[in-house]
Amino acid sequence: MSFNIPNTSRKRVVIVGGGFGGLKLANKLKDSNFQIVLVDKNNYHQFLPLIYQVASAGLEPSSISFPFRKIFQKSRHFYFRWATVNAVVAEKNLIETSIGELHYDYLVIAAGTITNYFGNQHIEEAALPMKTVQEALNMRNTLLSNFEKALTCDSPQEKQALLNVVIVGGGATGVEVSGVLSEMKRFVLHKDYPDLDDHQMNIFLVEASSKLLSAMSPEASASAERFLREMGVNVMLNTMVKDYRNNKVIFDNGEEIPTRTFIWVSGVMAAKFDKMDSALLGRGRRIMVDEFNRVKGSDSIYAIGDVCLQTEEAFPNGHPQVAQVAIQQGVLLASNLKKILLGELPEAFHYRNLGALATVGRNKAVADINNIRTHGWTAWMIWLLVHLRSILGIRNKLVVLINWVWNYITYDQSMRLILSAQKCKDQDQKKEEEPVK
Amino acid sequence: MSFNIPNTSRKRVVIVGGGFGGLKLANKLKDSNFQIVLVDKNNYHQFLPLIYQVASAGLEPSSISFPFRKIFQKSRHFYFRWATVNAVVAEKNLIETSIGELHYDYLVIAAGTITNYFGNQHIEEAALPMKTVQEALNMRNTLLSNFEKALTCDSPQEKQALLNVVIVGGGATGVEVSGVLSEMKRFVLHKDYPDLDDHQMNIFLVEASSKLLSAMSPEASASAERFLREMGVNVMLNTMVKDYRNNKVIFDNGEEIPTRTFIWVSGVMAAKFDKMDSALLGRGRRIMVDEFNRVKGSDSIYAIGDVCLQTEEAFPNGHPQVAQVAIQQGVLLASNLKKILLGELPEAFHYRNLGALATVGRNKAVADINNIRTHGWTAWMIWLLVHLRSILGIRNKLVVLINWVWNYITYDQSMRLILSAQKCKDQDQKKEEEPVK
Repeated sequence: MSFNIPNTSRKRVVIVGGGFGGLKLANKLKDSNFQIVLVDKNNYHQFLPLIYQVASAGLEPSSISFPFRKIFQKSRHFYFRWATVNAVVAEKNLIETSIGELHYDYLVIAAGTITNYFGNQHIEEAALPMKTVQEALNMRNTLLSNFEKALTCDSPQEKQALLNVVIVGGGATGVEVSGVLSEMKRFVLHKDYPDLDDHQMNIFLVEASSKLLSAMSPEASASAERFLREMGVNVMLNTMVKDYRNNKVIFDNGEEIPTRTFIWVSGVMAAKFDKMDSALLGRGRRIMVDEFNRVKGSDSIYAIGDVCLQTEEAFPNGHPQVAQVAIQQGVLLASNLKKILLGELPEAFHYRNLGALATVGRNKAVADINNIRTHGWTAWMIWLLVHLRSILGIRNKLVVLINWVWNYITYDQSMRLILSAQKCKDQDQKKEEEPVK
Repeated sequence: MSFNIPNTSRKRVVIVGGGFGGLKLANKLKDSNFQIVLVDKNNYHQFLPLIYQVASAGLEPSSISFPFRKIFQKSRHFYFRWATVNAVVAEKNLIETSIGELHYDYLVIAAGTITNYFGNQHIEEAALPMKTVQEALNMRNTLLSNFEKALTCDSPQEKQALLNVVIVGGGATGVEVSGVLSEMKRFVLHKDYPDLDDHQMNIFLVEASSKLLSAMSPEASASAERFLREMGVNVMLNTMVKDYRNNKVIFDNGEEIPTRTFIWVSGVMAAKFDKMDSALLGRGRRIMVDEFNRVKGSDSIYAIGDVCLQTEEAFPNGHPQVAQVAIQQGVLLASNLKKILLGELPEAFHYRNLGALATVGRNKAVADINNIRTHGWTAWMIWLLVHLRSILGIRNKLVVLINWVWNYITYDQSMRLILSAQKCKDQDQKKEEEPVK
């Protein structure tokens, strides 16, 4: 295998990862004088802010996943390649991937983060992460299968473990998942499973620090906590998870909660590549970059978004790992690369914080926008509009809107399908059948 | 594990399989004096006539899959259980399943058919069947992965195998898949893969008999064939597949076509259960039933739909295995079971043929309705209306309609996601990661 990309007189920019930062960069560069190669391990961009709605059966994967080839159909000097990048060989200006090597003139690492299990193998094996569409589908399948199994389970202990949901991590994803699951419990569970005692479903949201949404204002944290408690979520602050064994979450203080639905949204670490100098990595394994997002000691390697660590006066420990930083860095880097090509001087990055939003449930969200801090219905409407606007494509916007309106009116998440093992089948490979239970 | 279904004074009807027949029967019986237990290996009903549109990235699984629990939310004496039925023990009036045994007063087998590979292990291992939503997603993944691999493949032979699509079976599904893939080739491929020579994608539709759509009128067969040839499909009639080896389809006459996308929609056989008397099985392994759909020699076991073999004067070899037969048998059996409960005499089944439809492409379908035989735009509009009407739920109708209108206007199937291995994760089980090629 090989990349099969023509060598032309154009300078080649290779972008690793098509998340918010990589996608924005590619979009801004597509009609420039560069040749652009985007490499991603999926053939689609994922709109991660809505992934929890896929997990909770409210949206379909295709509503929040956009095939790169479709986005860049009209770009002549753009190449997408579906591959995993294994190593960055700076001294040879090339990357090593699952489909071979590729030389670059400029490399932009925009590979984001992966879930951090803090080295605990038991947790890694058992936990349901929520960083990809695929993982969201896994969560949907697990949750629904566990309800089905609870119905036919003969042991009361096992039944309780099947109905307990433990979510570790009180950031935006943890808050959003707890909220949507508590609504599923309240509005759907007793209708779908009339012969299951719905009081048995318990939702625990576990956070190591003293407040939820620690990146937001104290007002937002307090409102989110109050909303969740009112919705019946057991919010456990100042609580550390130590281990997961025998289908039980084990806490630092020795307490345990039996659960088969153990959702882990507790932390991330930057994606990692072989053959890169580990001295370049900072806190959270992030790649240290200068004010132009240039990797220290290199003229041709850049990093943007969650994978990089860039400091400025207002952010001495680096920027928050959020979409807005990645998008703004993508925009500026596109402009800087064009300047460099013309021999002009690049511009330094300054993050403009547009605010933060998190949704908790129906008519309930929290928003910090500049000095305006709001919660409840207004924040919820802002959240809806901001996210609907960000979804790519008119068809997707329409389908998401219909689903939202529908779910709102009917109090129902209707995509409650358990779609079991699905393999990208290779003709040489033995077919795999997933036996039901 | 156990079924956990209360024993009451109500007679228990156990329905195995929630396809067209089983679902209709359950719907008609839900407010009767029976206790209804529906057992299915999926937690959703699949609307199979549109499955090929999931395979070709035009629709999402949730648009054609309907969770049983949602359909029967308001039915008090209805129980759904997610399980695989292994055996029918007639002498004890019970079924053996993956979640334990269950006694019945009346058993209705509505389990449909499975793909028939005619005993060829190589074909079974390599072929992509299209009987379930899951299999349709597998096909979508395989097709799209093969395009991606073709781009980076260094061997011309291997590249051709990745771009050849061979569809075996010239029934409605084979015709519909060939048609939609030829439109994908014509309208999408060159836009998504400008650096791939789209003349290299060849679509072969292979049929053992002398005509396509052999269940329809000669006019319909001829029109479908003409449409497909005009659309660039290589229709191969009177051609038998002998084997599949080394990524090649091998025909009876010794010819070969290399392909990595080998779609098998060539035949079915009835689902099978252990401990049933094999003397009860007829052609295609179908369970022989009398005019009341009663399994021969039993008072309490019935079979409806594709799984059963029932003859009447106009159908000496049994009914065609189509949705309409199953639905009509479901309706009548519901009424007959109610009559039997009241001590009345049941009514014999007579199939009322409402006609047959198959779609080939944009504005192109064939229809046999009573003596009216039409093809082209009129047939296509009939096809659209009939299928839209049959989809359960307003939200689904709306979403399908938007997708259809969208695809029609844009000449685009937009759900081109490769969603790789997806497991219903068990907390004890080691996580499985699918490395991207």
